[in-house]
Amino acid sequence: MPRAFVFDAYGTLFDVHSVQAHCESLWPGKGAQLSQLWRTKQLDYTWLRSLMRRYAPFSQVTEEALLYCCDFLNLKIQEGERRSLMAEYRRLALFPDVKHALAGLKAKLAILSNGSPDMLDPLVAHSGLRFDAVLSVDAVKVYKPAPEVYQLAVDRLGVSKADIAFISSNGWDAAGAKSFGFSVYWINRTGAPVEQLGFAPDRILESLGEILR
Amino acid sequence: MPRAFVFDAYGTLFDVHSVQAHCESLWPGKGAQLSQLWRTKQLDYTWLRSLMRRYAPFSQVTEEALLYCCDFLNLKIQEGERRSLMAEYRRLALFPDVKHALAGLKAKLAILSNGSPDMLDPLVAHSGLRFDAVLSVDAVKVYKPAPEVYQLAVDRLGVSKADIAFISSNGWDAAGAKSFGFSVYWINRTGAPVEQLGFAPDRILESLGEILR
Repeated sequence: MPRAFVFDAYGTLFDVHSVQAHCESLWPGKGAQLSQLWRTKQLDYTWLRSLMRRYAPFSQVTEEALLYCCDFLNLKIQEGERRSLMAEYRRLALFPDVKHALAGLKAKLAILSNGSPDMLDPLVAHSGLRFDAVLSVDAVKVYKPAPEVYQLAVDRLGVSKADIAFISSNGWDAAGAKSFGFSVYWINRTGAPVEQLGFAPDRILESLGEILR
Repeated sequence: MPRAFVFDAYGTLFDVHSVQAHCESLWPGKGAQLSQLWRTKQLDYTWLRSLMRRYAPFSQVTEEALLYCCDFLNLKIQEGERRSLMAEYRRLALFPDVKHALAGLKAKLAILSNGSPDMLDPLVAHSGLRFDAVLSVDAVKVYKPAPEVYQLAVDRLGVSKADIAFISSNGWDAAGAKSFGFSVYWINRTGAPVEQLGFAPDRILESLGEILR
């Protein structure tokens, strides 16, 4: 039995594509495409900046990714739209299976996220969820899946890596956490293949609720 | 005037999507999608493995990306097909503007590539092009855009970074090279926006031939 459950935030607890409706209202017919591309570019930029050793907070990276995507899709974006879309990211919807699953777990609960505190703290407050710790990569100035990020959970929770269960819907994050040495549950809501990165998760679940079994 | 021109290989000199015809012959109607997804996944895996500190040679990463993509697209791939697709990567077509541009440059010419020697050396030999140096990230066991990769060109060519012009069609590679300190020409054949990574290229060209001006 793990002594701590550590959750990824974006894509695992919170649905990043809940921005799609607002995208669609601003640019009818383009909402789904913009939302998908925005997420892809956001992640690319976290990896690229980490490798370039040019860390910038997730709020900046997310906004820069948005600007690139609007430019790429030929969508004109003004200051007000930019601000309203970034505000959406601070009140993303919870996946429907989150509240029940978290309520049933009897151990320390934590978030370990790419989100900088200026995005992550309002998001968690808005959700009404309670955690023993909300940890951001901003403390180590490099993004997932760098091992320094996963080490942050060990250091801050005071729990050894062998006693931590890490839960993510992002297959590459699951691989990074497994490579680091956590027990890993990959929440595979979409039926995607396991990432070919040499570190398969310990368990593959279709929804968060299955953790309770 | 630069003392050395250093070229990216895949996507800049060589068209990675020349694998598309063979993909299409194996899985009619799926060639373009597989070729696009394969390239995207290949790059993702270079970034992810670098951050995980789990370097593997580009030949392995490229093959693992192919397996993921076939699985994702529900395409059954056998050993023979896998081998024939990997063989395509060792004889990628040159872009039509390459030979003329290289012939006109009066300075040291080099390649600096993610490709491991087992992929890169046969590819360059097949092309008939001549370079003063063909450098692979395999020497430093981390992928672009890590600064160690660009430093390799400085060390191996014996030319200071201020005297090197770096040429890439990959916008993120151009950003990484600029962040490192090269003069950077971004070959933007598709009219894409500049990557929002904080390091814009010095020059944006529509084709390699424009270097000669």
